[in-house]
Amino acid sequence: MRTFTCLAFAGVIAATSLMMAPPPLRVIFFGDSITEAGVGPTGYITQLRGMLPRENFELIGAGIGGNKIYDLYLRLERDVLSKSPDVVVVFIGVNDVWHKRSMGTGTDADKFVVFYDALIAKMQEKGIRVILATPALIGEKTDCTNDLDGELNHYAQLVRDVAAAHHCALVDLRSEFLKSLAAKNTANAEKGILTEDRVHFSPEGNRLAGRPARRPPSLNALRPAPGAGPGNRS
Amino acid sequence: MRTFTCLAFAGVIAATSLMMAPPPLRVIFFGDSITEAGVGPTGYITQLRGMLPRENFELIGAGIGGNKIYDLYLRLERDVLSKSPDVVVVFIGVNDVWHKRSMGTGTDADKFVVFYDALIAKMQEKGIRVILATPALIGEKTDCTNDLDGELNHYAQLVRDVAAAHHCALVDLRSEFLKSLAAKNTANAEKGILTEDRVHFSPEGNRLAGRPARRPPSLNALRPAPGAGPGNRS
Amino acid sequence: MRTFTCLAFAGVIAATSLMMAPPPLRVIFFGDSITEAGVGPTGYITQLRGMLPRENFELIGAGIGGNKIYDLYLRLERDVLSKSPDVVVVFIGVNDVWHKRSMGTGTDADKFVVFYDALIAKMQEKGIRVILATPALIGEKTDCTNDLDGELNHYAQLVRDVAAAHHCALVDLRSEFLKSLAAKNTANAEKGILTEDRVHFSPEGNRLAGRPARRPPSLNALRPAPGAGPGNRS
Amino acid sequence: MRTFTCLAFAGVIAATSLMMAPPPLRVIFFGDSITEAGVGPTGYITQLRGMLPRENFELIGAGIGGNKIYDLYLRLERDVLSKSPDVVVVFIGVNDVWHKRSMGTGTDADKFVVFYDALIAKMQEKGIRVILATPALIGEKTDCTNDLDGELNHYAQLVRDVAAAHHCALVDLRSEFLKSLAAKNTANAEKGILTEDRVHFSPEGNRLAGRPARRPPSLNALRPAPGAGPGNRS
Repeated sequence: MRTFTCLAFAGVIAATSLMMAPPPLRVIFFGDSITEAGVGPTGYITQLRGMLPRENFELIGAGIGGNKIYDLYLRLERDVLSKSPDVVVVFIGVNDVWHKRSMGTGTDADKFVVFYDALIAKMQEKGIRVILATPALIGEKTDCTNDLDGELNHYAQLVRDVAAAHHCALVDLRSEFLKSLAAKNTANAEKGILTEDRVHFSPEGNRLAGRPARRPPSLNALRPAPGAGPGNRS
Repeated sequence: MRTFTCLAFAGVIAATSLMMAPPPLRVIFFGDSITEAGVGPTGYITQLRGMLPRENFELIGAGIGGNKIYDLYLRLERDVLSKSPDVVVVFIGVNDVWHKRSMGTGTDADKFVVFYDALIAKMQEKGIRVILATPALIGEKTDCTNDLDGELNHYAQLVRDVAAAHHCALVDLRSEFLKSLAAKNTANAEKGILTEDRVHFSPEGNRLAGRPARRPPSLNALRPAPGAGPGNRS
Repeated sequence: MRTFTCLAFAGVIAATSLMMAPPPLRVIFFGDSITEAGVGPTGYITQLRGMLPRENFELIGAGIGGNKIYDLYLRLERDVLSKSPDVVVVFIGVNDVWHKRSMGTGTDADKFVVFYDALIAKMQEKGIRVILATPALIGEKTDCTNDLDGELNHYAQLVRDVAAAHHCALVDLRSEFLKSLAAKNTANAEKGILTEDRVHFSPEGNRLAGRPARRPPSLNALRPAPGAGPGNRS
Repeated sequence: MRTFTCLAFAGVIAATSLMMAPPPLRVIFFGDSITEAGVGPTGYITQLRGMLPRENFELIGAGIGGNKIYDLYLRLERDVLSKSPDVVVVFIGVNDVWHKRSMGTGTDADKFVVFYDALIAKMQEKGIRVILATPALIGEKTDCTNDLDGELNHYAQLVRDVAAAHHCALVDLRSEFLKSLAAKNTANAEKGILTEDRVHFSPEGNRLAGRPARRPPSLNALRPAPGAGPGNRS
């Protein structure tokens, strides 16, 4: 099994850097409003910048509110490939589920996978290291009664499967956040612990997303993508 | 704690009969398409008829496909009160959740409770013994990735709360069916074990719904509803 | 044909008063957020208060944001019947349509009619004069491309049919607003002429809703409801 | 204004052939279930085959039930480009609207345009002549009370705008079908005139879609796409 699951972004990125071209490693975080907020004062990308040596890592936020998987697909060239990153962290899925209910324009499960596959293929063929993150939360209740829990679990599983199929490192935020809430949210609150509003991370949620891995990943898990050359910025 | 949870319909109904007027006890099953199918050849009501002595119990199906809580409310007089039942089993909730997605006309959680409260009040003030059943399944997958799991858990919990608030006996089908699937659906199939089509009971599902309780409920749990007189058919 | 269509609220209410008990006539406006805002500084109820002699008319707002037809049904006793009005203006329907899309909990067309029928029956049997208003707008574009135009037309027609069936006066806001927009919204704007936000009335929209009828309705159209006695406050 | 609107498919295709390479002209119909049924016994493609000389036209159906604009985008290479057509008729949009309500996975209006643009660009850069058709009907009622009328009008207008922007010939089925219904559906029936089931064409609907144009389009309107070379099959 080549997929590799890590506790949070810091560990995966740090481990990735060990195998790649000299610094700074350019990392793009590609996602929705959660990632858009990730570069704010308490955002997870901002926190990662504080943790990782600046001379070694250039962390770039590329989140746009409301984005679904096919929005990423449509703006891949402009917002990612044109910037020649070494690593791209794809963190998407909340709106693909949520918009089914709120706007009638969520993403079919099978199309979610098709677009995700195509997105990864386009990056991997440029030699970009791709890291996937599962969608974390839509509601914090711990008794599995958040309205979209079933579907969010479903799409998180799709992301895990996609990561495995493409040999991508995986940051399983859904799993990590659920574990954390089991301990911290004994009152079964709907929001306010790891999120501000059921979806967007609180400072505590951003800390959890960004925190360093306790168990450093094995380097083998981070071997180059199949058929990929070295970094694409020579 | 006055609410009383039983494994399935047979036990609750049998226990109820011990405290009530001489036979036959008239029991109406009030619900949606699952109950409509309940009087079919392998239906759960048909199975109950085979289990309970005919001279003691008259079991009447009053299920209509597509019904939500407010449909029951609107046809209560015509289909239930006019028939002077001793006991009414209310088994509703699947469409209140499902139609949110399929038709845009599901039931708000707070209105689900308001209508349920009103429904029970109207029956209890006639001295009818009311038994509630939680909605069982929309999808049989056991890893909590059925799309509507979160919301179905939510509404099942609402039914449990309503039962407690009105001192109604509760047949917690959701809980029972999940327990059964944990053992029987190790392949994580979407349907085909307890349902035919993710929702409507298979013969096996009907058996589970109708089976006698292994632990007979305590009689105390079935004491008359507050302020209720004896049976309403004197 | 006994249904009576008038241009706006003022005319219908004024005409109604001619046939009823001595002043002041108590009129309750029963609806959703549009009616809730109707008592604001530029609201349509406020404007009506300025137009109709205070000694003859007591105008009461009873709008609650987010209400659908069955919310009115559920709070009829508390918010309307308990106040013994002479006239009730029912202005509902926008959320019954809108929430289908935004929340998955709109109202089925057939249930919309069933609850509306029941609502009117309960008021008419108390001798209350009932006036219905059609839902006005969800979007102001004039080329029939507002996303919910088809469905809003559908539900407006249901209100017209219900008014006819119960011999209620009708204020056909939908029809009036569309006529006004045909003249004023030649740029096909989505909002900003009669609404602030596609739904809630601008000062201009409130003026249109409240303005006096140009053609006073015939008194015959306002004859007492079948079987109704005189006003219910003796 | 370079866009060109024709009454139905036959005329546009025939006119197109005048400007292109020697026969047979290969035409692919690219769409959803309506096009999938178009090759059936009474289907519109079958009818076109009967009208157009077989030695001059090769008509190929490439419809798949449930398809939305991005499904066409995703299978363009496999089902269209790999077959080197001279002309492609794109007839899509019903599911982009319908699935918003029925499945929560319709297509955002802005994304509909983005994917449509991309689809056309990929075909035009191969020198393929692209013809667009507006989505015809979801419900046949003529008083603009079909639930999805507003949204379907919206998306039909988007298709007209896209056709204009890319200088594509347009077969405005929506407009033609509405005109036909205004004459034939005076009873305001929901289905049964041009459709079997509100969406899929009846034999009469297929005839209307396929019938020859009464006014042959001007040749100028069918000039080669900007920057396009000759046919792509040399």
